Amino acid sequence: MKYASYIAHGQPYYGAVTDAGMIALSPDLPQWRTLHEVIAAGTFDRLAEVAKDKPVTHTTFTYDMVLPDARRILCVGVNFPDRNAEYKDGSETPKYMSLFPRFASGFTGHDQPLIRPPENHTLDYEGEVAVVIGKAGRRIAQADAYDHIAALTICNEGTIRDWVRHAKFNVTQGKNWDRSAAMGPWLVPFTDASQLDDARIVTRVNGEVRQDDTLDRMMHPIRRQIEYISTFMTLQPGDVIVTGTPTGAGARFDPPRYLAPGDLVEVEVNTIGTLRNTVADEVL
Amino acid sequence: MKYASYIAHGQPYYGAVTDAGMIALSPDLPQWRTLHEVIAAGTFDRLAEVAKDKPVTHTTFTYDMVLPDARRILCVGVNFPDRNAEYKDGSETPKYMSLFPRFASGFTGHDQPLIRPPENHTLDYEGEVAVVIGKAGRRIAQADAYDHIAALTICNEGTIRDWVRHAKFNVTQGKNWDRSAAMGPWLVPFTDASQLDDARIVTRVNGEVRQDDTLDRMMHPIRRQIEYISTFMTLQPGDVIVTGTPTGAGARFDPPRYLAPGDLVEVEVNTIGTLRNTVADEVL
Repeated sequence: MKYASYIAHGQPYYGAVTDAGMIALSPDLPQWRTLHEVIAAGTFDRLAEVAKDKPVTHTTFTYDMVLPDARRILCVGVNFPDRNAEYKDGSETPKYMSLFPRFASGFTGHDQPLIRPPENHTLDYEGEVAVVIGKAGRRIAQADAYDHIAALTICNEGTIRDWVRHAKFNVTQGKNWDRSAAMGPWLVPFTDASQLDDARIVTRVNGEVRQDDTLDRMMHPIRRQIEYISTFMTLQPGDVIVTGTPTGAGARFDPPRYLAPGDLVEVEVNTIGTLRNTVADEVL
Repeated sequence: MKYASYIAHGQPYYGAVTDAGMIALSPDLPQWRTLHEVIAAGTFDRLAEVAKDKPVTHTTFTYDMVLPDARRILCVGVNFPDRNAEYKDGSETPKYMSLFPRFASGFTGHDQPLIRPPENHTLDYEGEVAVVIGKAGRRIAQADAYDHIAALTICNEGTIRDWVRHAKFNVTQGKNWDRSAAMGPWLVPFTDASQLDDARIVTRVNGEVRQDDTLDRMMHPIRRQIEYISTFMTLQPGDVIVTGTPTGAGARFDPPRYLAPGDLVEVEVNTIGTLRNTVADEVL
């Protein structure tokens, strides 16, 4: 079973995804207005029961960002071996991971356009796996880390490259342009370690493979990410960790190959699905 | 009039602050569970009317972080002239401001202890003015920027210094330890430009002045902050901008003077009030 946030007839819903369309679940669960609230309440695993034997509700709908009201989204930077080398600054593999928050407002949903703003055209893609926390914890041991994950989804961690280095520290302003990134299409319940341990990310632009790597090559594996982040903050249900992108973003080509209106970007993860987005100039 | 979030008899409230105690307002406004929801609904200026002629409700209470459910808190780094020099890296005044998000979970309230974790003892203070957005906007002109501010408060942007530089980029992990910072004591409605233009920040540790500067010396003034941030993201009511700290944090002394249990830190802003916090070791 897979779960998504979507818009139908101008109204927001969450529901179960089937080949025939969406089974709306939010009308049956008015106490939780959003998928994020379902997870924050610790009741994500009840959704399968609610969806059971229900007919399809919507065949016409638009995907929303999968957790449009996510409160805390933490991204791991520079987490594949060749990514560190891409910076060409002679630095060794870092002992600690780089982390930066993104606001939910920066994300759009599956099949929606990533927005290129008029101020700067260095819009770039980054295919990643995102994990959604289902159980709170502080100072979580690596051995227990997977027990705290409720679901998986895919992120295209779209970035305005020129703005990432505006400041001496911090990538904030290059990573938080409205609807410059995408998350979805859906949440897949996390039930088996192999969904992460055997996962492979392939990012294609207009059909051409740009990124292709496996999660087992991460410098800071997901178990370590959960251990490290939960050292300084209590992880809460509904928190999202975007776990890092392989080499091959557009900025690393010479000359760089940035996204332009009309491009189609697909991020495929074998254990989750494919997140697909077009690119459009912002309409002012 | 001033407004605070607080706990009384184990229950969360928001209300108006008087010398005699708190006038609870949340019981009269059940449609908005928190002060942040009041502001997000664009109805902050109705609170004065609701509080009018009401008697004091609570004389015994504990201050909470002033906006405990704030969704987006953006901090401006290195924003006073001598702060840039403090880094001693020979860099000129930066053209763009440094920005980093903090999660609400990192903040405690007025009169509560800042928490020093067992992992690292380099807990440091940073006195700052925070502005709370009251009106949404994108690409806001500097001339209009103040029209988008609903209220002011004070921030002690407590930091675990050693963890700020764990990674190549981004200060995230040094800036988001649970309850390592404080925000409050209250919100003061922003009604006159002089509340910012004539503001002075004085930070004292155990009575000794450590920081003392005026907001008119900022390298990136608050009008410019609102213009710049709203270039890449639509500012929403309830968003908080923590506008930068003067020189004189503990890390800049030689040897550094970090906070220790029993210390008392006060951040006084002449146009807002005084945010006072003790320091305590985390109880595991």
